[in-house]
Amino acid sequence: MSEFAAVELIMQKREKGELSTAQIDWLVANYTSGVVADEQMSAMAMAILLNGMSRREIKDLTMAMIASGETLNYAGLAAPTSDKHSTGGVGDKITLPLAPLVAAFGVAVPQLSGRGLGHTGGTLDKLESIKGWRASLSNEEFHRQLAEVGAVICAAGAGLAPADKKLYALRDVTGTVEAIPLIASSIMSKKIAEGTSSLVLDVKVGSGAFMKNIDRARELATVMVQLGQDAGVNTSALLTDMSTPLGLEIGNALEVKESVEVLAGGGPADVVELTVELAREMLRLAGKTDVDVAAALKDGRAMDKWRQMISAQGGDPDAALPTAKEHQVILAPSDGVLTKLDALQVGTASWRLGAGRARKEDPVQFGAGITLHAQLGSAVKAGQPLMTLHTDEAERFERAMEALEGSFKIEAAAIAAPRKILLDRIEG
Amino acid sequence: MSEFAAVELIMQKREKGELSTAQIDWLVANYTSGVVADEQMSAMAMAILLNGMSRREIKDLTMAMIASGETLNYAGLAAPTSDKHSTGGVGDKITLPLAPLVAAFGVAVPQLSGRGLGHTGGTLDKLESIKGWRASLSNEEFHRQLAEVGAVICAAGAGLAPADKKLYALRDVTGTVEAIPLIASSIMSKKIAEGTSSLVLDVKVGSGAFMKNIDRARELATVMVQLGQDAGVNTSALLTDMSTPLGLEIGNALEVKESVEVLAGGGPADVVELTVELAREMLRLAGKTDVDVAAALKDGRAMDKWRQMISAQGGDPDAALPTAKEHQVILAPSDGVLTKLDALQVGTASWRLGAGRARKEDPVQFGAGITLHAQLGSAVKAGQPLMTLHTDEAERFERAMEALEGSFKIEAAAIAAPRKILLDRIEG
Repeated sequence: MSEFAAVELIMQKREKGELSTAQIDWLVANYTSGVVADEQMSAMAMAILLNGMSRREIKDLTMAMIASGETLNYAGLAAPTSDKHSTGGVGDKITLPLAPLVAAFGVAVPQLSGRGLGHTGGTLDKLESIKGWRASLSNEEFHRQLAEVGAVICAAGAGLAPADKKLYALRDVTGTVEAIPLIASSIMSKKIAEGTSSLVLDVKVGSGAFMKNIDRARELATVMVQLGQDAGVNTSALLTDMSTPLGLEIGNALEVKESVEVLAGGGPADVVELTVELAREMLRLAGKTDVDVAAALKDGRAMDKWRQMISAQGGDPDAALPTAKEHQVILAPSDGVLTKLDALQVGTASWRLGAGRARKEDPVQFGAGITLHAQLGSAVKAGQPLMTLHTDEAERFERAMEALEGSFKIEAAAIAAPRKILLDRIEG
Repeated sequence: MSEFAAVELIMQKREKGELSTAQIDWLVANYTSGVVADEQMSAMAMAILLNGMSRREIKDLTMAMIASGETLNYAGLAAPTSDKHSTGGVGDKITLPLAPLVAAFGVAVPQLSGRGLGHTGGTLDKLESIKGWRASLSNEEFHRQLAEVGAVICAAGAGLAPADKKLYALRDVTGTVEAIPLIASSIMSKKIAEGTSSLVLDVKVGSGAFMKNIDRARELATVMVQLGQDAGVNTSALLTDMSTPLGLEIGNALEVKESVEVLAGGGPADVVELTVELAREMLRLAGKTDVDVAAALKDGRAMDKWRQMISAQGGDPDAALPTAKEHQVILAPSDGVLTKLDALQVGTASWRLGAGRARKEDPVQFGAGITLHAQLGSAVKAGQPLMTLHTDEAERFERAMEALEGSFKIEAAAIAAPRKILLDRIEG
């Protein structure tokens, strides 16, 4: 490998120069090994945030992060593979019904997931509210389940893209999280290393999402779709609304309950719509068109896969889900239509009730969260329940209520209409 | 003191926001104490480099760095004080004749200096080639010499602006040296903490200088002059040429020898011109106009002060200066006029001959360096000596010669003319 000086690479990016493939390889390898210091990498991250990177540089950065660790592949698997990544939102339980729904059509879903931090929940936290279910699988268990059941949702091992893990922790404390080249390479390095042959990105837009406006979200989605294509992963992206929570349940066990309703052919229209849209897209990329996706939710095929998937990881799909000890109900103050129901505020309140964590070593309460009794666009009557707050510790209600201040608006003159969820689609 | 989060301040600057006085105070105090980590400060430094700082922010940064350490003052001193700072160049020995020249007119010069690093020499390294002279003075010795002799050139204590020392070391390895707000606050925090009531900045421009082009140099000079005025220090700046070396001697003892020639009424015209210009400016700022500065070089008054100044710090002004063991002469290859003599290349060659250091713990050779036998604009004859290289170690000639490759140009058709040294003047 060529030798470079970190300070010269930083100065090059600072002056809006392009880094070569060899320079990026050197930088990532030497940052991972500790030769390039944290204070050098953070200055570089800030220069990248402010001066950008070309498509070629972003690809090289992603490839270098993949090369810093191990990669998975499914050479022995008969079925095609497809995966989904969401940039995270409030009430976003879609992975739970989606993975078994897609697997029901013979496309394998190897979904390596994470835990929640801040106001967005984590898929593993949700599934851990199911009695007996375990997130950690050995490599062998993972491959066997993928072959036999066709769907696995489990914890990503530390071996995938360790450079990304180190860089992400650094960005978090140095104000450099928001750089599109760094976000895109972080997400895509893990997904490409995971070995899926196709990938659908659910890029959330709105107050409860990482991307607050649609132009930035579209830019991120475009970069990630290009990255996927450049790496030989058939990739597309949906831009979806996250200005208001997804579905009626926010919180770990509450979201499992709602997911099971969807798998049983019910559930809120927005959750069903997004699940079906993402499933169609994953199946299309994996070569399956002309399939009636919605039917598999109605006729129990997706539910069967769900039960197999949960059981395979030690979970009891029939066990009662944990519920919180304490409840508080918020009533509608007037008649009208709910014209605002802010995702970030509801997410923050749920987090404060105990559903989320502030530091990665904190525990979560499985029963905590919020049940909505009306969604954005619903007509409500004065005095009807608007939301129920759930927690094991009654002292948490006060700070949750503070977070909810001004989170909703009821307008007498407005006309009720269902929320619009799909905002745009980016194809490779 | 208010409490802030480093990451939020970084994000604010990243988004081109202005930091408040309280935020800057907090940042500098907590960086000095270690609460704000190096990787956070380097991301901040890069954001400042790329997004800039307002005049008010630069002033606050400078004041916060001053507040991180001790400050000097001359309340008991009868004479006004004036100081000079040079941004550094090749053959820049001006401080040596300048301090005693100004002191000869009853204006006290408290000059806290540093050692050289890279291709520019350091004032203390030069003076240490004088037998017995010592750079370190106690606070009491410093004040007594300033009162009795009127001129002191000595090492700056570690107590002045420690935040600047820490930040400078960080900038050096993170590609963030070149930010004008950071350069200006670094220079000015030390000069303001030093307590001088007036200050002349010699901002060098050209290949051998930190600032390669005049627009950037003018911008830096303007910011520093404003900073001085804002802090109550009567400040002005001269922009001077550093595309070619200053004088005929480059290297520690060689530059002392040339300085003594100037103090004896001789010396190269460019060194005399710049010394006189800077002395006039320092005296003017200290309230002394209508003085014949050049006369004090001719009639021995400046030389008398020099001898007192050197003796007061244990130096023997009559001792023979160290000379190098080995010499090599470069001859002019053709007749004509010297139309190029590059400062950076000559400075680098002198450094490689042993006059400078690469790391701050390296020793220097007092006798090493380069003697020029012609300056930019001089007429030369084929076969005449152009420069003499001096070193104690003959094996150093090869790399010095490499540095000099293409460093000069002789044109037959050109017309001889003296070099122009003073490029611009910035007043408060």
